[in-house]
Amino acid sequence: MGPPVPKTETARAENRRRNVISTKLTELLGIDHPVICAPMGSVAGARLATAVTRAGGLGLVGVSYGDAAFIDEHMARAAQDGGVWGAGCVMFTFDQRPGLWDKVLGYAPPVVALSFGDFDQIRRYVSSAAASGAHVVVQVHDTEQAVVAVEAGASVLVAQGAEAGGHHKTLATLPLVPAVLDAVEGAVPVVAAGGFADGRGLAAALALGADGVMMGTRFALTEESLATEGFKKTLVSASATDTVNTRAFDVVRGIPWDEVYQARSVSNDFTREWTGRDAELAARRAEIEPRWTAAVARDDTSQRALFAGEVLDLVRDVRPAADVVHRTVTEAEDVLRRLATRVTP
Amino acid sequence: MGPPVPKTETARAENRRRNVISTKLTELLGIDHPVICAPMGSVAGARLATAVTRAGGLGLVGVSYGDAAFIDEHMARAAQDGGVWGAGCVMFTFDQRPGLWDKVLGYAPPVVALSFGDFDQIRRYVSSAAASGAHVVVQVHDTEQAVVAVEAGASVLVAQGAEAGGHHKTLATLPLVPAVLDAVEGAVPVVAAGGFADGRGLAAALALGADGVMMGTRFALTEESLATEGFKKTLVSASATDTVNTRAFDVVRGIPWDEVYQARSVSNDFTREWTGRDAELAARRAEIEPRWTAAVARDDTSQRALFAGEVLDLVRDVRPAADVVHRTVTEAEDVLRRLATRVTP
Repeated sequence: MGPPVPKTETARAENRRRNVISTKLTELLGIDHPVICAPMGSVAGARLATAVTRAGGLGLVGVSYGDAAFIDEHMARAAQDGGVWGAGCVMFTFDQRPGLWDKVLGYAPPVVALSFGDFDQIRRYVSSAAASGAHVVVQVHDTEQAVVAVEAGASVLVAQGAEAGGHHKTLATLPLVPAVLDAVEGAVPVVAAGGFADGRGLAAALALGADGVMMGTRFALTEESLATEGFKKTLVSASATDTVNTRAFDVVRGIPWDEVYQARSVSNDFTREWTGRDAELAARRAEIEPRWTAAVARDDTSQRALFAGEVLDLVRDVRPAADVVHRTVTEAEDVLRRLATRVTP
Repeated sequence: MGPPVPKTETARAENRRRNVISTKLTELLGIDHPVICAPMGSVAGARLATAVTRAGGLGLVGVSYGDAAFIDEHMARAAQDGGVWGAGCVMFTFDQRPGLWDKVLGYAPPVVALSFGDFDQIRRYVSSAAASGAHVVVQVHDTEQAVVAVEAGASVLVAQGAEAGGHHKTLATLPLVPAVLDAVEGAVPVVAAGGFADGRGLAAALALGADGVMMGTRFALTEESLATEGFKKTLVSASATDTVNTRAFDVVRGIPWDEVYQARSVSNDFTREWTGRDAELAARRAEIEPRWTAAVARDDTSQRALFAGEVLDLVRDVRPAADVVHRTVTEAEDVLRRLATRVTP
């Protein structure tokens, strides 16, 4: 990572010049483009988050399960860089670690993104994050979660479908987004996630009525991402049909995910060996986890998690994150202009 | 069904007046609206197909697995009604029944829609249907099938995602459609299917670059659909989260579906009892099938297939099919007009 570059007025003016797509999301958060980088664990560090924020989108540091050293390193750097940035936390893991949650809020992120909690956790963490003064973005996977999150005081919802990489529930984005919009009746901006990688997707999300998109895989394959070389190389050449839903990586790591959530990964030797054999893997964890962890440390792509969405066919390169933001917005604008010609009188 | 009403010039003028969304699909087929009714077995008879065709969309009779009496009754009526209509056939079931395939082509449908075949079947049935002079619409579920179908001579592709009702493969519509468009590079119009029920969806499909939508569940819940009262009543009050992917209905019927295809149904006692127990159900079929068939004959919704897509939250009524076509198009136009204001200089 280079030295932090202050977000100059020139950069902001350049972002705004490009910005013809303003939505309830951009207005609420004060960002230039309705594009959010997913807070991917082990992928979205300060370098990626600040690159997206500087480009006019919303960058989120992937705090995920919570790690004190990671929080201190990456949130401090993102906070120093400034702008509209945030931290993304997996709710169910913070209950046993109140000190970590206080540490997250201690960096005063302008945005806190929350995902993967039960109704009680949604209520508590939304309330706590909102009390810190942050905009609270809550990821939901069905209309019930959406209603609970809005009642709890969420500022923004992310409606995430099962075509996403990493963890997700069962419904697909295309029917989920309008259902969530109908359920919350315009109470808050709704961001679509799962299945987006380019401007066609952003335009489609806006057509559904969403106020922006969150993209994961596309931002994982950027120069600024923390993803390893093996991860990036594998994903760039993989196809959507190479992915599989699995709980094996959660079981081997001993992370207590609710069984309603699966994780999508490019399939490899580890997923082929262990997917669907959760109980046996859990029973043999003492034996298997050390050598799996050693393989991950070697960036062994036959063993490590290769979380990726069904957008793989649409992502064929590794490029700068700012380029992803600007191409996405520019392409979406082109699509909207083309569609506009269909309805001119 | 009332007596067939010839499609008058007045009706066509009314359709055209409403039609501001013209695409490569509408131009190729000579239809007014880029909306196709899925050829759902036991649901899309002549009455539904002709209602959609008269409303300016493309109506397809659901020939599905092939039944001589059904073909003779429904294709004769659709042919008599005229306009741009078609028949939808499940390829893998026709190989053992060449007489039935000849019977389908004997009614000279202007469109033949083909689904669910291996590469060899795609090549043979596309070739045979094209030789009859029909436009050949081929449903695909990944980019490999898309390329094979275009090479075989398909006129139109339907890229169908796993949020569809009834049978489907694994990829979701939102990432699948642009991947298919990229793979076939504009060779033929591409229709998006799976997850569509209203004009927001049509507008989103056009934003992705598709040339129209195919809708199933939305047209199953119309006055003209052959679906039973129990089916319609159950689906209207069910939610997307009430659906399940299952092979149980195929196994109990003894229909030799490739295991890569699942069917989405509203869950009921039968799916809860048998989903995931294919081998046991197959072994006990002689015992179970007769009472299951009797239950279906009674329209017992605790037992019968209730095929439905993830759009259930967007479909809350039973209405005339023409109304579905016109509302979908009108709403899509409204969305495109709203989006157009985002990019005016």
